[in-house]
Amino acid sequence: MEALLVQYRERIRTELDRAVDFWLKYSHDKQYGGFFTCIGKDGKIYDELKYVWLQGRQVWMYCRLYRTTERFCRPDILEAAKSGGSFLQRFARVQPADGPGKCAFCLTRDGHVVKVQRTIFSECFYIMAMDELARVTGDKEMQNDAERMMDQVVHWVRIDSSGLGRPPQCGDAPVNSMAVPMMLLCLVDQLTEGRAGLAGKYRELGDWCVTQILQHVQRDGKAILENVSLDGQELPGCQGRLQNPGHALEAGWFLLQYAKAQGDAELQKVAVAKFMDVPFLTGWDKQHGGLFYFQDVDGHCPTQLEWNMKLWWPHCEALIAYLMAYSHFREPAMLDKFTQVYDYTFSHFPDEKAGEWFGYLSRQGDVVLDFKGGPFKGFFHVPRCLYMCEKMLDHLLAKLQAYI
Amino acid sequence: MEALLVQYRERIRTELDRAVDFWLKYSHDKQYGGFFTCIGKDGKIYDELKYVWLQGRQVWMYCRLYRTTERFCRPDILEAAKSGGSFLQRFARVQPADGPGKCAFCLTRDGHVVKVQRTIFSECFYIMAMDELARVTGDKEMQNDAERMMDQVVHWVRIDSSGLGRPPQCGDAPVNSMAVPMMLLCLVDQLTEGRAGLAGKYRELGDWCVTQILQHVQRDGKAILENVSLDGQELPGCQGRLQNPGHALEAGWFLLQYAKAQGDAELQKVAVAKFMDVPFLTGWDKQHGGLFYFQDVDGHCPTQLEWNMKLWWPHCEALIAYLMAYSHFREPAMLDKFTQVYDYTFSHFPDEKAGEWFGYLSRQGDVVLDFKGGPFKGFFHVPRCLYMCEKMLDHLLAKLQAYI
Repeated sequence: MEALLVQYRERIRTELDRAVDFWLKYSHDKQYGGFFTCIGKDGKIYDELKYVWLQGRQVWMYCRLYRTTERFCRPDILEAAKSGGSFLQRFARVQPADGPGKCAFCLTRDGHVVKVQRTIFSECFYIMAMDELARVTGDKEMQNDAERMMDQVVHWVRIDSSGLGRPPQCGDAPVNSMAVPMMLLCLVDQLTEGRAGLAGKYRELGDWCVTQILQHVQRDGKAILENVSLDGQELPGCQGRLQNPGHALEAGWFLLQYAKAQGDAELQKVAVAKFMDVPFLTGWDKQHGGLFYFQDVDGHCPTQLEWNMKLWWPHCEALIAYLMAYSHFREPAMLDKFTQVYDYTFSHFPDEKAGEWFGYLSRQGDVVLDFKGGPFKGFFHVPRCLYMCEKMLDHLLAKLQAYI
Repeated sequence: MEALLVQYRERIRTELDRAVDFWLKYSHDKQYGGFFTCIGKDGKIYDELKYVWLQGRQVWMYCRLYRTTERFCRPDILEAAKSGGSFLQRFARVQPADGPGKCAFCLTRDGHVVKVQRTIFSECFYIMAMDELARVTGDKEMQNDAERMMDQVVHWVRIDSSGLGRPPQCGDAPVNSMAVPMMLLCLVDQLTEGRAGLAGKYRELGDWCVTQILQHVQRDGKAILENVSLDGQELPGCQGRLQNPGHALEAGWFLLQYAKAQGDAELQKVAVAKFMDVPFLTGWDKQHGGLFYFQDVDGHCPTQLEWNMKLWWPHCEALIAYLMAYSHFREPAMLDKFTQVYDYTFSHFPDEKAGEWFGYLSRQGDVVLDFKGGPFKGFFHVPRCLYMCEKMLDHLLAKLQAYI
């Protein structure tokens, strides 16, 4: 088994190096700062719009690599992160007319606002970026800025959402959408890591996020549903029946990570049994392999045109989830699932020729959209998955070797 | 050739009868009025939400069939149209807080507002429905109501769009999106048909729509682009390079119809040479057949995940366009194109078993989403295409037989 893990680690390390090289080489806007994210298969920029989610995620990823992985502790990576952070600080926050603390969703190359979404996610990726950048630069004011925006986001989610700008409608009942507590739990992890002084401040929020996420376990524990009512009941119609296996798996490793940090053994088990086993049972395509993008729990056809496509990011989340579960519980079944996802992923997504991964395959596994970066695919899911898997494999192998 | 046209007409007439039967049987909400539109392949309602575009289109289609086609001049069809019209009048218009004249995009089964879009299209389909319903019922006040809403829509488009509720952003330059002048030209045709007194009122608007649509002819006449600047220049990025062959074909028959009514021979030629020949050259999939959904004029990969899918409605628009062009100019090449689209369409979309058409195929032509109705597929494109083609074939065959 050690040989297998060594082989996985080599491939993963190589893929990570290639992904980092790709984005360092093609994505930097040396004229206006920030990052291009619409990048064709060979590195050509096919659109200059700058998506704020992806700017924030790329800053975060560069800083995280710089801070935690020796071979990426390089001045060019730090400079790129700082340039992206500076672009975000100058341009991402919109006029107060759109609500205090709102960030744009999309900017022109030179930083003019194109679109503002009436959700919390641009702001959340801004927080992730600024907090991680503050960690590598030691900029305390930047960290405070991130915390202030976090307070604002939590206010929108838990107290009053009117600042997001969406007028309430009588037929539009509030929904517990799994993305929201997942995102906040991810930020709790980000803001509290290694900061004992902040653990208390965010403990209640972290527990609230867990409760909200667990409400998505439905149908006697046999399904994870993306949207439930605020009191945790199933909702009618397509919205209520929607499943997103990759998203459930991502929630799984968020929960397992939180449960490990809190020493909560029961939650550790639920994270694996519900958020990792269930989406694999229902979401893996037994005919062509790979994880479906969307499914309907009652077997109706989803209304999303892309429901049966195989996207890169659910496979990234699955790799993290199963390797984390295996590292923690050492159950061979988890390593088997990791292997199954690994084999599909590495035989379908990486571009052997130009580096980085394709993102969008047909159900049959053929590349349907051949760009490396787009409005929703940036320098994030691929390198986060590879960096986390490399670390976990380092740890597993070190323990194995210690036994010898 | 007569035998071929007779054969086409028989198949088209049969398909139209089956489509009408399907929606009469499954879509009526006898409890709350209006129409269900999320209908599975065998007629089962899988979501009760009521999309206002589709409510309006179904009212329009029932009335148009009732008014123009003898075998559909039936009390059950008139009653269904009236019920849908009454549901729209009671529930579609939202509170003035969302702006005067705004209609909802989506309602609950019992008429509560779920979502309001910041565009003009719900209002436009409301106008289409009410005007056509007024024609069959003789309700003059309903016709006036439709005209008043038309004034409001034209105000949003040509004078001041702030009533739509989208805050202006400095990087978001106004765009000439082809859908807007197409929709208005369609309404000009609707409101002026057979009403000489209104022709003057809408003549300038009709001509303005034509000018706006013609701005989408780009690249020395070799491409129809979905989005251009307000002064008719190509826009940068994906938005500027986007092509939608089915939409261009629909614009083609709108233009040809308008040009015939105005006796504008030059516009008749442009409609065919640019809006019918060009999208076929670029948009037909030479490998698997059928029309692509989206394309990039420079050959980059579109960012729409569904770009290579084959949807029912572009094929409906192509059938209307080529048969209208053939009926008008009698060029055999147009009938050849009609035949090519006909063969693909009738061998891929109709459901022989349960009636009506599937809407969403993979590039290879396999059914990927198997419902008959969804958030964007209602009782509209299929019956409009079949009813118009049946009429045109009646006319062609009558002329052929008159020669004998």
